[in-house]
Amino acid sequence: METIDDVGEFGLIARVQARLPLTSPETLVPSGDDAAVLAAPDGRLAISTDVLLEGRHFRRDWSGPRDVGHKAAAQNFSDIAAMGGVPTSLLLAMVLPGDLPVAWVEEFAEGVAAECAPLGAIVAGGDMVRGDLITISVTVLGTLEGRAPVLRSGARPGDTVAVAGRLGWSAAGLELLLSGQDPHGDVGDGAAQAAGGGTGAGSGTEALPQPADYLAAHRRPSPPYAAGPQAARAGATAMLDVSDGLLADLKHLAVASGVAVDVDSTLLVTTPGPRLDQILTGGEDHALVATFAAEVPEGWRPIGTVYEGAAAVTVDGKPWEGPGGFSHFGHSA
Amino acid sequence: METIDDVGEFGLIARVQARLPLTSPETLVPSGDDAAVLAAPDGRLAISTDVLLEGRHFRRDWSGPRDVGHKAAAQNFSDIAAMGGVPTSLLLAMVLPGDLPVAWVEEFAEGVAAECAPLGAIVAGGDMVRGDLITISVTVLGTLEGRAPVLRSGARPGDTVAVAGRLGWSAAGLELLLSGQDPHGDVGDGAAQAAGGGTGAGSGTEALPQPADYLAAHRRPSPPYAAGPQAARAGATAMLDVSDGLLADLKHLAVASGVAVDVDSTLLVTTPGPRLDQILTGGEDHALVATFAAEVPEGWRPIGTVYEGAAAVTVDGKPWEGPGGFSHFGHSA
Repeated sequence: METIDDVGEFGLIARVQARLPLTSPETLVPSGDDAAVLAAPDGRLAISTDVLLEGRHFRRDWSGPRDVGHKAAAQNFSDIAAMGGVPTSLLLAMVLPGDLPVAWVEEFAEGVAAECAPLGAIVAGGDMVRGDLITISVTVLGTLEGRAPVLRSGARPGDTVAVAGRLGWSAAGLELLLSGQDPHGDVGDGAAQAAGGGTGAGSGTEALPQPADYLAAHRRPSPPYAAGPQAARAGATAMLDVSDGLLADLKHLAVASGVAVDVDSTLLVTTPGPRLDQILTGGEDHALVATFAAEVPEGWRPIGTVYEGAAAVTVDGKPWEGPGGFSHFGHSA
Repeated sequence: METIDDVGEFGLIARVQARLPLTSPETLVPSGDDAAVLAAPDGRLAISTDVLLEGRHFRRDWSGPRDVGHKAAAQNFSDIAAMGGVPTSLLLAMVLPGDLPVAWVEEFAEGVAAECAPLGAIVAGGDMVRGDLITISVTVLGTLEGRAPVLRSGARPGDTVAVAGRLGWSAAGLELLLSGQDPHGDVGDGAAQAAGGGTGAGSGTEALPQPADYLAAHRRPSPPYAAGPQAARAGATAMLDVSDGLLADLKHLAVASGVAVDVDSTLLVTTPGPRLDQILTGGEDHALVATFAAEVPEGWRPIGTVYEGAAAVTVDGKPWEGPGGFSHFGHSA
């Protein structure tokens, strides 16, 4: 099988670039010069960065390269949506083993491209160097389209807490993988799509999820990108993306806003669907959680209320003492 | 010694952030929310990304953490200068071993901060995850201040080729390190500064370099940041930063512009100074090379001429057949 060492760095760049979207009307100078030049039509840009490390954030025996490409783009795009913005471009800085098949990198690029396509986002730059372990650093840019960013710090007592997108699906999928089920990624775009749309306001819990859907959700998160700008337009007071788990991320919101948050378990659990502990503590679905002083917009599901008090998160009025707890903090921004 | 495993991810973030510049007048939302929001006053941004991998781009026994911080920022800032822009911010995505001393990361951050300071640049985001080998992905942003970007593709027959900054110094320093001399980085800001200013238009070859200066130059490149916008204002037709070596990077320019380039060795060599082969093929000094149809601005040194012809680079009218040749292509953009 042809490897990276076989084709060399410049050969690899050409093969990857052929599979990526490289230009858009906002791309004034595409990747390939010392720097790209991008338009920022409203005079601002939203930007964030994340690392995916083989063995820690994905396993090659559990996820195919297309899955990893989808996930690398999706978890970063979600950070832009959580500000109320629209992702426009990303940059990929990668460490790749010399004996990695070129096909792996090509299919990874195809996964990135597929996640970019519905958003019209492009890849504005990259770097690839040889090393022992696959390491993928993604920097994502987005536009706020003239709106004020929705921060974590604006929640006020009396606000309704609402969620868009899926909770607990990725955790349910991980549990299946850990129990030895279906260790095959890239099972086809059909299977991944069946698990829920990626761009609409999430209403995943209305579906009737099957094990294959949880597995697909673990491999390829489907963040509800459009729900971010929608929440911003509807006057969301605070918003963030659920990457560490609902309770952990609501804690970030509670600390930043100086408020207490209580969630109602009866509004979270659906049958069939993930267990309550998966919903509360499972990360990586990249749902959006936001607070609203006024009416919750369509596609968003109320799940709780903001109260005056010390920065704390409770479930049905009590601290959560079930599985997961607050120990699983893995993500940094 | 206190390690990353001792302080944990959130502890480490706090220690690093305390040492970094995090806000500027253009920082609308600093790092810490889902994404940062930055102003792009002229409605555009220049952006580029690079990976530094331990063992490949730096050695911990040859470079101290402050050296690595300076270098990580400098080699990226240089890409913005090479478009005619001014660096404004960077994002740091890092893989760090759990047994790495916290002090290493703190001093790395201090090196980044010191390289940012004269430019007023800030750190707008980051991510840190545990892994086996230090991997530092830097994404840099800059502003073109309303000017058109200077691309690699605009050189025309008759243009003068000119350089700003140092050539061959880093290669001379590497040669000293390979021969076993002075394997100690972070030798003090005094020594690093003695090797040449970092922000003015480079005139390094007028100094009288000592071995310590070459070593410092290898550890901490001093790109002539101000020379980039200066060249843009002076009507440079093409420009790029010398990261792979003068001949290799001029070849990129020749290919992109569809021209031939000849350099005059008598304009390159100074005594004392690096050898001609170090000047022609040594990378990592991050000098700027540009072409000018009109007068070469102050601080820029003419070194050759653009001719009509197939994309090729010659030295005194002949292909370079000395040490280095064209085989050492290591960098990608």
